[in-house]
Amino acid sequence: MDKTEKKVNGPLVSIIMGSDSDLEVVKEAAVIFKNFSISHEVRIISAHRSPDEIVEFAKRAEDRGIKVIIAAAGGAAHLPGVIASHTTLPVIGIPMETDELKGIDSLLSIVQMPVGVPVGTMAIGRSGTKNAALFAVEILALIDSSLTCDLIKYKAGLVEKVKESDRKAQDNIGRCPTQES
Amino acid sequence: MDKTEKKVNGPLVSIIMGSDSDLEVVKEAAVIFKNFSISHEVRIISAHRSPDEIVEFAKRAEDRGIKVIIAAAGGAAHLPGVIASHTTLPVIGIPMETDELKGIDSLLSIVQMPVGVPVGTMAIGRSGTKNAALFAVEILALIDSSLTCDLIKYKAGLVEKVKESDRKAQDNIGRCPTQES
Amino acid sequence: MDKTEKKVNGPLVSIIMGSDSDLEVVKEAAVIFKNFSISHEVRIISAHRSPDEIVEFAKRAEDRGIKVIIAAAGGAAHLPGVIASHTTLPVIGIPMETDELKGIDSLLSIVQMPVGVPVGTMAIGRSGTKNAALFAVEILALIDSSLTCDLIKYKAGLVEKVKESDRKAQDNIGRCPTQES
Amino acid sequence: MDKTEKKVNGPLVSIIMGSDSDLEVVKEAAVIFKNFSISHEVRIISAHRSPDEIVEFAKRAEDRGIKVIIAAAGGAAHLPGVIASHTTLPVIGIPMETDELKGIDSLLSIVQMPVGVPVGTMAIGRSGTKNAALFAVEILALIDSSLTCDLIKYKAGLVEKVKESDRKAQDNIGRCPTQES
Amino acid sequence: MDKTEKKVNGPLVSIIMGSDSDLEVVKEAAVIFKNFSISHEVRIISAHRSPDEIVEFAKRAEDRGIKVIIAAAGGAAHLPGVIASHTTLPVIGIPMETDELKGIDSLLSIVQMPVGVPVGTMAIGRSGTKNAALFAVEILALIDSSLTCDLIKYKAGLVEKVKESDRKAQDNIGRCPTQES
Amino acid sequence: MDKTEKKVNGPLVSIIMGSDSDLEVVKEAAVIFKNFSISHEVRIISAHRSPDEIVEFAKRAEDRGIKVIIAAAGGAAHLPGVIASHTTLPVIGIPMETDELKGIDSLLSIVQMPVGVPVGTMAIGRSGTKNAALFAVEILALIDSSLTCDLIKYKAGLVEKVKESDRKAQDNIGRCPTQES
Amino acid sequence: MDKTEKKVNGPLVSIIMGSDSDLEVVKEAAVIFKNFSISHEVRIISAHRSPDEIVEFAKRAEDRGIKVIIAAAGGAAHLPGVIASHTTLPVIGIPMETDELKGIDSLLSIVQMPVGVPVGTMAIGRSGTKNAALFAVEILALIDSSLTCDLIKYKAGLVEKVKESDRKAQDNIGRCPTQES
Amino acid sequence: MDKTEKKVNGPLVSIIMGSDSDLEVVKEAAVIFKNFSISHEVRIISAHRSPDEIVEFAKRAEDRGIKVIIAAAGGAAHLPGVIASHTTLPVIGIPMETDELKGIDSLLSIVQMPVGVPVGTMAIGRSGTKNAALFAVEILALIDSSLTCDLIKYKAGLVEKVKESDRKAQDNIGRCPTQES
Repeated sequence: MDKTEKKVNGPLVSIIMGSDSDLEVVKEAAVIFKNFSISHEVRIISAHRSPDEIVEFAKRAEDRGIKVIIAAAGGAAHLPGVIASHTTLPVIGIPMETDELKGIDSLLSIVQMPVGVPVGTMAIGRSGTKNAALFAVEILALIDSSLTCDLIKYKAGLVEKVKESDRKAQDNIGRCPTQES
Repeated sequence: MDKTEKKVNGPLVSIIMGSDSDLEVVKEAAVIFKNFSISHEVRIISAHRSPDEIVEFAKRAEDRGIKVIIAAAGGAAHLPGVIASHTTLPVIGIPMETDELKGIDSLLSIVQMPVGVPVGTMAIGRSGTKNAALFAVEILALIDSSLTCDLIKYKAGLVEKVKESDRKAQDNIGRCPTQES
Repeated sequence: MDKTEKKVNGPLVSIIMGSDSDLEVVKEAAVIFKNFSISHEVRIISAHRSPDEIVEFAKRAEDRGIKVIIAAAGGAAHLPGVIASHTTLPVIGIPMETDELKGIDSLLSIVQMPVGVPVGTMAIGRSGTKNAALFAVEILALIDSSLTCDLIKYKAGLVEKVKESDRKAQDNIGRCPTQES
Repeated sequence: MDKTEKKVNGPLVSIIMGSDSDLEVVKEAAVIFKNFSISHEVRIISAHRSPDEIVEFAKRAEDRGIKVIIAAAGGAAHLPGVIASHTTLPVIGIPMETDELKGIDSLLSIVQMPVGVPVGTMAIGRSGTKNAALFAVEILALIDSSLTCDLIKYKAGLVEKVKESDRKAQDNIGRCPTQES
Repeated sequence: MDKTEKKVNGPLVSIIMGSDSDLEVVKEAAVIFKNFSISHEVRIISAHRSPDEIVEFAKRAEDRGIKVIIAAAGGAAHLPGVIASHTTLPVIGIPMETDELKGIDSLLSIVQMPVGVPVGTMAIGRSGTKNAALFAVEILALIDSSLTCDLIKYKAGLVEKVKESDRKAQDNIGRCPTQES
Repeated sequence: MDKTEKKVNGPLVSIIMGSDSDLEVVKEAAVIFKNFSISHEVRIISAHRSPDEIVEFAKRAEDRGIKVIIAAAGGAAHLPGVIASHTTLPVIGIPMETDELKGIDSLLSIVQMPVGVPVGTMAIGRSGTKNAALFAVEILALIDSSLTCDLIKYKAGLVEKVKESDRKAQDNIGRCPTQES
Repeated sequence: MDKTEKKVNGPLVSIIMGSDSDLEVVKEAAVIFKNFSISHEVRIISAHRSPDEIVEFAKRAEDRGIKVIIAAAGGAAHLPGVIASHTTLPVIGIPMETDELKGIDSLLSIVQMPVGVPVGTMAIGRSGTKNAALFAVEILALIDSSLTCDLIKYKAGLVEKVKESDRKAQDNIGRCPTQES
Repeated sequence: MDKTEKKVNGPLVSIIMGSDSDLEVVKEAAVIFKNFSISHEVRIISAHRSPDEIVEFAKRAEDRGIKVIIAAAGGAAHLPGVIASHTTLPVIGIPMETDELKGIDSLLSIVQMPVGVPVGTMAIGRSGTKNAALFAVEILALIDSSLTCDLIKYKAGLVEKVKESDRKAQDNIGRCPTQES
């Protein structure tokens, strides 16, 4: 695959959510795709309130060149499952935090899919949103090996950041009893 | 409305489930409709595995004369919500018991619907199935007042049954210390 | 049924809650009935603290012309079930959010009703409140077909609103890598 | 109070359950009352299916000489709370195990009562049933001090039983490595 | 029993909590006892941090004239159970809300007692605290019938308060469509 | 990619579990890969009991030609996360049902991964196992478009199966009142 | 420390449970101590039913030469915490599975201890029982370094066992498509 | 063991967390070690983001003179288990509170370890952090008996603090009805 060419033609990843109230959190997935220079789109389509639009979206996604779909939803969170029922593209689900049940309702509604219609489910909320994007990058790396290099660099960056935190913590707190005297 | 005429034309209630593995439990709803002489149909259509069929079913239900839809589903139980997104008929949801999480996943997936697409949710499993039918009868009684009479008789039967159990329990166990001597 | 006439005679829907602390949330159901021009009443009667009043209310509701009862309660939320035990009208239950357990106690207390006394249960809190009203409108549409038209318009409005959000999101965020250069 | 006299006149404790399906478990409470020679009755009255009967029962209990009411219920377990709303007698609630949610629904429906209508809640199922009876005995001991002596003997019996188990366990298993050689 | 005399001799009810951090909530039980003119004490003794003191307290409570013990605790909430293991007085448990698990840990730790050592458990937090006091009053009413009258008045006050809220709600919100015009 | 060639060289998918007690369930994933003619391996390596082996496995997987890793684990289910921390290949996690907590522990241990190390999580148990394989096929279809055709056929098969069940259910149960006469 | 000498004098570890119904599971801890040749005792003492005995046991344990205490309990599982409140020895808690809530009640009752009285908590049930013994061995290895060698051998055995399972699984199932032809 | 010497050579306890966002809470463990004059270190190493570092840390800990490891983690909290899989030192786990699920995910991910790899688990959050340190002190007291004396003093301090709170509470609130007059 020629990655540059695809960028010209259209997005490789579609990020969908059911309501603009989720936009604040979900756009963090878009930030990660920008960092990895992966073309993507951000869409608001509701499984429940615009049901015809979601069916149409899911059925056309593959023909539009989409390779991976990320769907975020909360409560009785049907969006990822509804999309998955109309496509053979891999669908990644993000359970959004909810006011009352804190997202355990979203998680169970997304992850407990019946045989035949899998949804790759991420953690609840912000962590899950970022990981949804990274999981999509891991999948896209199968067709664009330069992304594997980018992921290895990204992971090396994580190691460095943890090491830096470790150094600071040891400077400030560690090996204490002597500090007391 | 002429109730007799409707029976001739087609079912007033549609009972839908996603898989024939639920049939054993869900057919208890049909038994109740038979007892109340309400025309109904039992359908197996999956929100996830036959998604086009469920959309078509939901969109055509009202024109076919259906007044109330009952949908039973388990796990990531999207069936009632998907139907509700495509119709303005009242949809009653039954959360089926699941092997692992015992139906709490089904319950949350059905009941936690977003604003605009309500599903009237019943108890998990067999009790919920019977009550879904009775709730439908209560709704249909608004257009067929003879059903109100039938419901009053049904409720009187419940009272009698409890009273009979009470009499038996008192005969067998009650007022004990004197029995000991 | 002549809808205009009914408005003169009394409310078609009764919205009950156990405490005025729930009024702030529950009155959103009343707003929806106003938008659909459906006559309704808002009542505060407690299943536990004014038990005789709730029995009297439930027994008289049908004779007063009430067609659907909506009951909101939190914690050991018995209000919908107690009402349902004294009437054959459809009862819609709203589990209120609670300070400690966030409404999972309310949800289970309302939805897990025994056979014979169904309560059509909605989502916890504000979403459930609005949906309770919409579910009541769906039921009333069986006896007033103009409400079906109103519901179809309402649902069309939801679609438009989602589409508008979608357009905005695409303008602001979408198709990113080229924007970076 | 003259305890003997009361036995002649009627039961001191009323054990209520909503369905004869609970009788198998709940009658264990009656066994404990027999052992403590406390007059009692076992009743089956449903909060939901025979609602007028439960109101009448609750209102008349005190005049009939009842001192403590024990109510067992499962699922949306309203029985103890409904009784407590109609009497000032202490009401002890037993959450019955349920098929699907194992009694967590029963527990929350019974224990999370609003201010003004307390229910003294016991453990789920069989342990809670026996403890409901013992808790009633502790309450009755305030008006019949001979019961305090009986409770002290009962507790001494528990100590002996544990000690006996302890002796057996030590004989069979303890101080092992030397046994190996 | 001569109620006035008891007041002179010492408290009838002991309210115990494990930490002064619970005092803010638990003292609401004391307010109710003041309103019912019932002598009581408020104590801070920890089942875990002052274990000898709690054993001594529990063993001496009855001899000191205490009739009912109320124990509030959070997390691994052993206080009510530890007390109950050393006395035959009725022990009422209040599960305190906890920062992380919101009191579901406290509730299960208090209510799930083994056979032989019952604890009458109340709702989590503030509601449970007030109800613990009211439940104690219901128990004490068995030995002081004037308290039954006080409870009846208290309950009548609850009815009045609900009715007043009902009147206000109807004035402000009810019977709406005509208000729109 | 030449699919035939890959089969010769080695497996495309690695299915890992921590214990042979999971083999009975997890081998259902292998059945699906056989049906789709996808080369795979089934391995037993424990994150906790053979920690060096799992690190070595994860680090070498990509060089061995593995494209997707499926990891099944129960309880404190660290296997998928540990693998994901050592590779940039997509890792799919299957939460196994557990004896006591029924797999909710497994689910949370797998899905709640921190930012940087995503695991695409499936449903608990048997359904999740089959879906893990299907999700892997969806991912592999990005590099082997013939698999997309196979998936479309598979999904068409699901539709046919549901339709067949629907026909049977309607023949046996539907349109009832007339059957009664 | 001279390990042989200690064996002569008395047990190093005390395994306590509240009821002989737990003996079947808990004795698996004893088996592990036998395998590691660590002297131990198995005791049945209830925190609730023999409260004086548990206090006496906990206070005397250190003087008797006990180094680590393992306590197993179910439901409102206070045993480990009560012991920990009376000793400065490390206490390891095992939450037993319960009939209704499957041990989540036991787990929260044991693990959520307040500041000052720690209990090292293990997994629910059989796995936790075996791990409690192994954790005690890890602690005792600090005073008997030969146990570290034994633990290293034990862990090597785990690795071998996993590797053996891995070989079998690969022989029976792996590398499939070619096997099909 | 010569305790003073050890302090010179290196830390006896290692406190590890996966992210500096946990430092604010986890450093409370360090405060306790300072109070008990126990040499310790505070490290930030992630099981998921710096996986090679954590393996190296765990394998080398014993040779560095570490006696006990405390590991704090949140969400899919694998840190304590991963460390425990690479060492025979006792590992104490602290489940951190999480934004959405409040730490129940962390607790289950840490405590539900499989046979062979125990983690001594503490309460969620701040209480568990302090108790982790105290539990480590209890373990270290087996090799340094002066710590037993320090723990006895610490526990005596807890008793005094509770008694002081008790005195204040009684002065301010207790023995009330007479105060009313």
